[in-house]
Amino acid sequence: MDISSFVTSLLTSFVIFVVLVLVFTWLSRRPGNAPVYYPSVLLRGLDPWEGRGRGTRSPVGWIRQAFTASEADVVAAGGVDAAVYLVFLSSVLAILVVSGIVLLPLLLPLAATDHALENSAGFKNGKEAQNFTIIERLALGNVQKKSMRLWAFILSVYWVSFVTYLVLWKSYKHVSNLRAAARSTSDVKPEEFAVLVRDVPIPPPDQTIKDSVDSYFRVLHPDTFYKAMVVTDNKEADKIFQEIEGHKHKIAHAEAVYAESKKGNKPEGTKPTHRTGLLGLIGKKVDTMEYCNGEIKELLPKLEAEQKSTLHDKQQRAAIVFFNSRAAAASASQTLHAQLFDKWTVTEAPEPRDMIWSNLPKKIYERHTRQTVVYFIVFLTVFFYTIPITAVSAVTTLEKLREKLPFLKVVVDQQSEGIPSQSHVVRAASGKYFYFIIFNVFLGFTISSSLFSALKTIVDNPPGIIVMLGNSLPGSATFFLSFVALKFFVGYGLELSRLVPLIIFHLKKKYLCKTEDEVRAAWSPGDLGYNTRVPSDMLIVTIVLCYSVIAPLIIPFGVAYFALGWLIAKNQVLRVYVPSYESNGRMWPHIHTRVIAALMIYQATMIGVIILKLFFYSAILFPLIPISLIFAYTCHTRFYPAFAKTPLEVASQELKETPNMGAIYSAYIPLCLKPEKLEDVDVFEDAQSRTTSRAPSF
Amino acid sequence: MDISSFVTSLLTSFVIFVVLVLVFTWLSRRPGNAPVYYPSVLLRGLDPWEGRGRGTRSPVGWIRQAFTASEADVVAAGGVDAAVYLVFLSSVLAILVVSGIVLLPLLLPLAATDHALENSAGFKNGKEAQNFTIIERLALGNVQKKSMRLWAFILSVYWVSFVTYLVLWKSYKHVSNLRAAARSTSDVKPEEFAVLVRDVPIPPPDQTIKDSVDSYFRVLHPDTFYKAMVVTDNKEADKIFQEIEGHKHKIAHAEAVYAESKKGNKPEGTKPTHRTGLLGLIGKKVDTMEYCNGEIKELLPKLEAEQKSTLHDKQQRAAIVFFNSRAAAASASQTLHAQLFDKWTVTEAPEPRDMIWSNLPKKIYERHTRQTVVYFIVFLTVFFYTIPITAVSAVTTLEKLREKLPFLKVVVDQQSEGIPSQSHVVRAASGKYFYFIIFNVFLGFTISSSLFSALKTIVDNPPGIIVMLGNSLPGSATFFLSFVALKFFVGYGLELSRLVPLIIFHLKKKYLCKTEDEVRAAWSPGDLGYNTRVPSDMLIVTIVLCYSVIAPLIIPFGVAYFALGWLIAKNQVLRVYVPSYESNGRMWPHIHTRVIAALMIYQATMIGVIILKLFFYSAILFPLIPISLIFAYTCHTRFYPAFAKTPLEVASQELKETPNMGAIYSAYIPLCLKPEKLEDVDVFEDAQSRTTSRAPSF
Repeated sequence: MDISSFVTSLLTSFVIFVVLVLVFTWLSRRPGNAPVYYPSVLLRGLDPWEGRGRGTRSPVGWIRQAFTASEADVVAAGGVDAAVYLVFLSSVLAILVVSGIVLLPLLLPLAATDHALENSAGFKNGKEAQNFTIIERLALGNVQKKSMRLWAFILSVYWVSFVTYLVLWKSYKHVSNLRAAARSTSDVKPEEFAVLVRDVPIPPPDQTIKDSVDSYFRVLHPDTFYKAMVVTDNKEADKIFQEIEGHKHKIAHAEAVYAESKKGNKPEGTKPTHRTGLLGLIGKKVDTMEYCNGEIKELLPKLEAEQKSTLHDKQQRAAIVFFNSRAAAASASQTLHAQLFDKWTVTEAPEPRDMIWSNLPKKIYERHTRQTVVYFIVFLTVFFYTIPITAVSAVTTLEKLREKLPFLKVVVDQQSEGIPSQSHVVRAASGKYFYFIIFNVFLGFTISSSLFSALKTIVDNPPGIIVMLGNSLPGSATFFLSFVALKFFVGYGLELSRLVPLIIFHLKKKYLCKTEDEVRAAWSPGDLGYNTRVPSDMLIVTIVLCYSVIAPLIIPFGVAYFALGWLIAKNQVLRVYVPSYESNGRMWPHIHTRVIAALMIYQATMIGVIILKLFFYSAILFPLIPISLIFAYTCHTRFYPAFAKTPLEVASQELKETPNMGAIYSAYIPLCLKPEKLEDVDVFEDAQSRTTSRAPSF
Repeated sequence: MDISSFVTSLLTSFVIFVVLVLVFTWLSRRPGNAPVYYPSVLLRGLDPWEGRGRGTRSPVGWIRQAFTASEADVVAAGGVDAAVYLVFLSSVLAILVVSGIVLLPLLLPLAATDHALENSAGFKNGKEAQNFTIIERLALGNVQKKSMRLWAFILSVYWVSFVTYLVLWKSYKHVSNLRAAARSTSDVKPEEFAVLVRDVPIPPPDQTIKDSVDSYFRVLHPDTFYKAMVVTDNKEADKIFQEIEGHKHKIAHAEAVYAESKKGNKPEGTKPTHRTGLLGLIGKKVDTMEYCNGEIKELLPKLEAEQKSTLHDKQQRAAIVFFNSRAAAASASQTLHAQLFDKWTVTEAPEPRDMIWSNLPKKIYERHTRQTVVYFIVFLTVFFYTIPITAVSAVTTLEKLREKLPFLKVVVDQQSEGIPSQSHVVRAASGKYFYFIIFNVFLGFTISSSLFSALKTIVDNPPGIIVMLGNSLPGSATFFLSFVALKFFVGYGLELSRLVPLIIFHLKKKYLCKTEDEVRAAWSPGDLGYNTRVPSDMLIVTIVLCYSVIAPLIIPFGVAYFALGWLIAKNQVLRVYVPSYESNGRMWPHIHTRVIAALMIYQATMIGVIILKLFFYSAILFPLIPISLIFAYTCHTRFYPAFAKTPLEVASQELKETPNMGAIYSAYIPLCLKPEKLEDVDVFEDAQSRTTSRAPSF
């Protein structure tokens, strides 16, 4: 890529960005678009135009708002998970800014005043020597072999590494405190009173699973056991429930259509009709409201019967067990219960809305086997994806990759591992994406020209990859510079302007939606989508770190990416996205580990690059790898336990009010098993235990 | 080593063995030697000669007794740890017997009827071909390259591996049940009511450490907290206490001497005297009894004062916290207490006699740092020990090694890692010995001739070691055969006959001991010494496994080693050794992992050996390595949790009697801090909390 096409691409994407920001500024001020640009605000029952006079009317109002919002505001709007994602963005930003302050003034002059490129070209053609771009001149490539200037580059690697350690350490501490604060609030959260029990052994023939769960936990926790809810196979009940919901939805829609028709020239209105056959196209024509009401009347007793039989006969070998104090639940979730590992596995309960009900009864061996299989498939995908990539040229590759992502999505997003909660699924998927992206985009592009020989080198001599990376990375600097720029200008522009949701919303509202609920569904914003967002940011972290010393010019681009990213993400968290669960920052250890992985790729690459400069002192870089490992280990031992488990200190905080155990319990009842009126809970709990045992302890 | 010297060495050691067994049979029947051959029986207050008429008088009586004793007898005599050690020996025995039943009839004829050795020698000299020993003929070395007979050897490797998996699985299950049975007895054991708390944070200036431990645990465990005992720095108190004990000992000795002197011609007797100066050689001559009594009178108030000041002012940042139920203690020991990892670390409490009091206050970072340093030193020792070894010839090497073991002992036996209990120290030391022995004796001897080139190969190309082992192992078969034979004939002979303890006992009894206590100290048998015993057995496991297919003749030797070992260890456990602690088989996971490690060394070696036979199908062996890893992982996830933690099921068993919490508490008071009368405990506990809080939980 020569300098003019680089500048062209940069300018084009900048123009697109400016246009999109202007579009956003204009569109977001129209009240009719509020559900697209302020859904989170609306859902929290606030007025999006509040304080509009002061700032939101100005084009940069949203920027000021994003800056002034405190972390507490972010937690209130998007939960701890969103706050943790912003901490990630600001941490990387801090790493890049502090690194850049030293690296740019130090390395750019050293590179610019050397002559390696001219010399190497000079042998061939004196004239061509002028053709090197400014980017190439300002990079490590222009420093001569064995030059003492390389000392500055070695020290820079150390500087970047230690800045990263420091920032990561502080961030981990900060997130740890965020999590502790969120967990030790005095609000009653159902999941803090419950544990998830899996691998319940098959009970003796005269006992139901519910009986055996009840008696087991009553014996082991005589003072604190409250109730147990056995997981059931709800497929049938759910089917009937969804059918009823569908009919209810149709009635509401038909009523709205009917009401509208009255407004027209026919005051008595036209009752909507539909056909009962295939797709509503053939069969008998019926009055929709009447027909659906009849169907519901028919289905309700069926549902009730199915609920009863589900609770009685479809008990699965998993349960949610409730305790009458948070400390008891926290302690129980961390205590080994059975002598054998494959019986009575007890873990923390996920939030009710986070739970994947159908995954719970999967048995421990099945879970392990599935996990192994999934990781094997991911491994194959990650490795053999590189082969088709090499067949096409570089930029096409990225496009192809994006095209093929849906297939990849099937592989990495599937929930077949028996993971009990969505937040966990997201973490697992995010990890797989990370490896995929790093291997295929970064390594794949860098060494694509000679991938097969590269594979051979890796198999023959694993450390050889370092030298290979060192060899090929410097050449791709310009490409990655424009890649980062494209990413943030176009990507963030689209993100901020929300053009696609805007168009869909207006189309749906105009032609499809009749009832309030339908309109609400049309603008429902969804959540931040950490599973694809984090790995894609991680790729930029890896790229920018790896080039930070090779071509320090990339640092300003990285800074722009994460500064803009932080700003826009904060705006979207405050105004747009609605969290679909709260894991209290459980994502952070995952992010932390991957930033360290990126740092280590960087360190290994730099060893290769400096070795290729035939610089004797490059060995000075070797200790960085073990230092990174020790840092990762130290952080893990120090902070991780409080993420994996609930510390008793936290669980023993006083509660604001006496917990309503009935409400806690019914929060976990799946919709399709919920009786029509909540007061009937006690009547319905057939698979659930009724009595609270308070036998004295010995 | 040629065949005649092999037979000579075999015969010599056999003769030594027979002589030692005869000596044992003769000596052990003399009542005066009972304290040497039956100390464990005596200490349990039983009669060693009970049932002597029926069998013990016959030379093989001890064999019959060892065979008929049940596992329950072993547990009663030597604890679960001894039983687990016997399970280890019998498991290896089972592996070797079942392997041998298939391997010997299958492989020996296949090897004997081939002609690789003759062919290779034939080229040189037709006459020399007759010089191969029977051992060499009956080994894999005699099978020709690319021969289809190698299929049998490949299948044998699979057979041995799967037999090992099966036996290990069954044994782990068995040991797991043994441990569960031992832990769920209804006896009150103090350690089951206590947890060990380390890394207590520095309290505010107005609080003592004791206060802060008390209040912290009272808040977190309002219903179950009983008392806390803060660890103190007992160095001074212990010094005074030992001084007093010394004087008491001297008085008892002097009294015995005085009483003896009365029996002689002087009826009034001679009061023993000694000098107060250096080593009792110079200074004033005093009456020993009078002098020591005076000293004790002077020291007692000093001790009392020191005890008080220790309990007040020398509190350390560690404590033992007592709970009023086993389940509460088990649950507390597994629950994360503090938000930060380096505060309030809670673990299971070791047995009182197993505890290393002085290691408890070491802080978490100090422990980690020390551990890293120790492992680094062990690593260096293990690796660079091989270099001097190569300088000398093979057999000398083993002697040298044994000579240098005391130095090694200093490295691996030291307790500087801050490990809280002796049983843990033993496990850690045993692990280090294992690596040392495997690397230096087995690998060191095998590839000694070319160690430096070997090191180079390993660094350049790690998998190369497999080929190298495959190359050099077959040549050393004869050496290792005689090594195993020597080990069991001479080693077990000495072990059984206990000649050294016998001589020491009789010398001490005749010339030094005057009082009962002194005699008892002279025959005190000590414990089994797992830390050196297990790694040395492990070396034999590794050797026999590695040669099982290369030279199947080694299997009978291995069988003999473990059969005799089992017999003699069982005899010694029943009659001689006295356990110094009980860890309930905590050693087993350690042993299990190392047997798998030995199996994997074997599998890797066999891949190398078969590859060198230019046999195309040797790749069929590759899957064994991942299979072993999966097996190890499966066992670990399935069984290990119940070894690392106490399952609640086990801790919730009913107790025979209501536990006496006072007695449980005072079991942990160190000797030097114990008041003279046990009833005074309450008066003395100054660093310990007095009240049992039973505040209501919320």
